[in-house]
Amino acid sequence: MNIPRLSYPRIVIIGGGFAGLSLAKKLAGKEAQVVMLDKHNYHTFQPLLYQVSTGGLEPDSIAYPLRKVLKNYPNILFRLAHVEEIDVQAKKIFTDIGSLKYDYLVIATGSETNFFGNQALETHAMAMKSIPQSLNLRSLMLENFEDALLTSDLNERNKLMNFVIVGAGPTGVELAGALAEIKKGILPKDYPDLDTRMVQINLIQSGDRVLKEMSEKASEKAEEFLEDLGVNVWKNLRVTGYDGQLVTTNTDVSFEAATLVWAAGVKGASIKGLDSEDFVNRGNRILVDAYNQVKGVENIFAVGDVACMVSEEFPQGLPMMAQPAIQQGKQLGENITRLLERKSLKPFVYKDKGAMATIGRNKAVVDLKHWKFQGVFAWFVWMLVHLYALIGFRNRVVVFVNWVYNYIRFDREARLIIRPFKKRKYRD
Amino acid sequence: MNIPRLSYPRIVIIGGGFAGLSLAKKLAGKEAQVVMLDKHNYHTFQPLLYQVSTGGLEPDSIAYPLRKVLKNYPNILFRLAHVEEIDVQAKKIFTDIGSLKYDYLVIATGSETNFFGNQALETHAMAMKSIPQSLNLRSLMLENFEDALLTSDLNERNKLMNFVIVGAGPTGVELAGALAEIKKGILPKDYPDLDTRMVQINLIQSGDRVLKEMSEKASEKAEEFLEDLGVNVWKNLRVTGYDGQLVTTNTDVSFEAATLVWAAGVKGASIKGLDSEDFVNRGNRILVDAYNQVKGVENIFAVGDVACMVSEEFPQGLPMMAQPAIQQGKQLGENITRLLERKSLKPFVYKDKGAMATIGRNKAVVDLKHWKFQGVFAWFVWMLVHLYALIGFRNRVVVFVNWVYNYIRFDREARLIIRPFKKRKYRD
Repeated sequence: MNIPRLSYPRIVIIGGGFAGLSLAKKLAGKEAQVVMLDKHNYHTFQPLLYQVSTGGLEPDSIAYPLRKVLKNYPNILFRLAHVEEIDVQAKKIFTDIGSLKYDYLVIATGSETNFFGNQALETHAMAMKSIPQSLNLRSLMLENFEDALLTSDLNERNKLMNFVIVGAGPTGVELAGALAEIKKGILPKDYPDLDTRMVQINLIQSGDRVLKEMSEKASEKAEEFLEDLGVNVWKNLRVTGYDGQLVTTNTDVSFEAATLVWAAGVKGASIKGLDSEDFVNRGNRILVDAYNQVKGVENIFAVGDVACMVSEEFPQGLPMMAQPAIQQGKQLGENITRLLERKSLKPFVYKDKGAMATIGRNKAVVDLKHWKFQGVFAWFVWMLVHLYALIGFRNRVVVFVNWVYNYIRFDREARLIIRPFKKRKYRD
Repeated sequence: MNIPRLSYPRIVIIGGGFAGLSLAKKLAGKEAQVVMLDKHNYHTFQPLLYQVSTGGLEPDSIAYPLRKVLKNYPNILFRLAHVEEIDVQAKKIFTDIGSLKYDYLVIATGSETNFFGNQALETHAMAMKSIPQSLNLRSLMLENFEDALLTSDLNERNKLMNFVIVGAGPTGVELAGALAEIKKGILPKDYPDLDTRMVQINLIQSGDRVLKEMSEKASEKAEEFLEDLGVNVWKNLRVTGYDGQLVTTNTDVSFEAATLVWAAGVKGASIKGLDSEDFVNRGNRILVDAYNQVKGVENIFAVGDVACMVSEEFPQGLPMMAQPAIQQGKQLGENITRLLERKSLKPFVYKDKGAMATIGRNKAVVDLKHWKFQGVFAWFVWMLVHLYALIGFRNRVVVFVNWVYNYIRFDREARLIIRPFKKRKYRD
C-alpha cells in the first residue's frame, strides 16, 4: 500500500463502525500516523437497517462518508480495502490493495451473520447486516408481491406472501413490526387486486421469550405489541433448514415461504492469522483483556462486536451492540494515547446505558437501569436517541423528515426496487 | 398475464415516465380498464439524475413508487413487466411475465442512450438515463479516486482522475459543472494525500456551442460559467472511440481517461413489432400524427420521447424533454376519453415553456419565450421549477433539505459506494 512511513508510530484500524470511528476520533492530532481501512467508504448506522429494508428510509441517510468524518484530522488516512490476513510475527497485514506494516493494530471489524454452519440456510436466507443486504431484502419483498399477482396457484401465491423472520432480538422484532404495519397500511392500497389479508409474518424464536436480552416486562409488552399488529410469534421453535421454499423446524411445524430473514445469530468477523482457537472463542470473537489487548499478542487490540471481553457480569463477553463498541473505542483511544506517552493503561469499565427496541408506531420498549417503560413515551425516546446517535446533521434532518412524513401519512415511500434481487431477465 | 377481461375497453400503457403518468391520471375514473406496465416499480425524475451521480441527492428522493401514484384510481392496474414484442394484427403484447390483449395501446417507453452503433463506446462508456446507471457512475467515479491513491504511476493516476463527458446538452453541462464543484470543494479535503489539482473535467461537443437547443446567449453564458469552474470545454470535436483507457476523436486530440460519460445522444426506445422503417424514423422514434396516433396502425398511440410528431416548427419532431411528454400525455388522455365517448379528436398543440440548465451554485441559464436570463436568479428559478415538478411531498422536502445543506456547507454527503461498479474481489 502506497503510504509513506513517518517517524511517528503507525496505528492501523480495521473497520469504520461504531468502535473504529470513536477510536479514530480520540487519536486525532496525536503523535501517530493512523490508517483506517474499511471495505466500504461509509459508516453504516446498523440500528436503522431494518427501516431501509422496509422502505421507510433511503440508504444514503443512514450511511456517512468515512472520508468526511476523517477529513478534519490530518494524521488520519483512509483506504478502501478488504483485509485478508494478518501476519502477527511480521507486524503486517495483507489486503486486496496490497500489504501494510503496522506498529499497533486495532481490529474493529464488527460482526457478521452466523448461520452456525448450515449451508442451505446460508444459501437461501436473507441477512440484514449491511446496506447492500438490506436493499436486497427490500427488492426481494417487493418483487414477491409483484410475482404474487402473476400466479393463479393459491398455494404459490401464499408462499410468496409468507415472511419468516428467525430470531426475536431487536432486529427481528423491529423488522416483524415494520412488516406488519406495511401489511395493514400500504399493501391493501398498493395491491388492490391481491388478497393481502393472506400476508403472514412469522417471527420464530428458539428461546421462550422475545427480546431475551431485555427485561421480562419488555419482552412481555413487545410480544403483546407484535400480536396486536398481527405478527405470529413462535417461541421455543428452532429453524433447522430452508431450501428457498420450505422452512423446517425441530418440531412438526413447517412453513412454505419465499422469504426467510435470518436474524438469529451473529459472530465476530475475525481475520485469518488471528482466527485460531488461541485467539477466538466459539462465537468467533477475539479474546481481549480489560485493555482490549488481544490475549497473547503484543500491539494488537480488538474492540466492539469482534472483541470478547469477559467480566464477572458478562461471562460470555459484552453484548454485541453499539454502546459497548463506542465506549471501548473511546477508552482504547485514550489507552493508545497513554501508550504513546509511556503511561500505564486504564482498564475498561462498561457503563450500561440500557436497551430499547421499537415495534411500531407509538409502540416501543425501553429498559433503563432504574426505569423500564413501554408504549408511546418509549417510542418517542427511541426516536430521539436514534436521531441523536446518527452521524451528520443532514442525515438527522432527512431521517426526521421521513419519520414525520411516515407518521402523519402512515406511509413508507421508499418502496422502490432500484436493483432487482431475483434473477429477472431485464435488470437494467 | 393474470388480468380479468371487463366489459370496458382495455387501454395498455407501456411506461410510467412523464408521458405515461400524465396520460394515466387523465384516464382515472373513465369507463376503461387501464393497465400500466413498466420495467421499474417507480417513476424516475430524470432531470436530477446527474445529482444522484455526483452524490448531491439520494436515489430514493428522485424516484416515486408507481403503485402509490395509481392507488387512488381503481380502474388503473400496474404490472412490473418488460414488454418484448407487439403483435399489431392480434392486438396483443408479449412481456417477460406473459402476454396481454389490448383494445388501445400507448407506447410511452421514452428514450435510451444512443451510441450510434459504436460497439466499443457502448461497452466502455457510462450512460446516465436511469437510477441504476447513475448509481453505477457514482460508484465508478469514487472508486477511481480510491484507486488513484494506490498507484505511484503518475500517468495512471492522472488517467483515473480524468473525466470525459461527451455531449454538451443539459445533462453533460450539468454533470460537468457538478464535477467541477466537487473538484474544488470536496476532493482536496477528502483526499488530502492526492494532488486533486490534477483532476480534469473535459466536456466535448461536436457542435460549435454548448446547450445548442437553447439561445445563443444561454450557450455563451453557460460556457463562461463552465470555464470559470475550470471545465475544459471542447467544441467542434467528435469522439470516435473509447477502449476504457484512451478516448480518440476525429482530430489529433485524444484523452487518457478511466471514465467516459456518454451524453451525446438518445434514441427512441421502440419495441419489436413496431420498429420497422414503416413506423420509426432514423432516431428510432415512432412516427405519429397530431393525435399521437401511430401512422398506419389503428388503436396504437405513442407519446413522449419515443414519439416523433413532426410540425412546421419542429421538422425533426418535438424535442425529447419532459414538457412535450407531459403535454402529450395529458392531451392523449383527453383524446382517448373523447374516443371512448365517440367524439372527434383534437390535434396536439405544443406550448413551449422554455428551457433551463444549471451549471453550479448561483449559476444557471433560463430561456423563456420573451425573457432570457442567467446567473443567481436563474439558478433560483431552476431550483423552484425542479422542486415543484418533483412528484411527492416527501421527495420535495428531502430534496430541498439536501439542497439547502449542500448550499450552506458546500457539500454533497451522498458520496457513497453502496454497490461497487468495478470488478472488485469483495463486493459484499
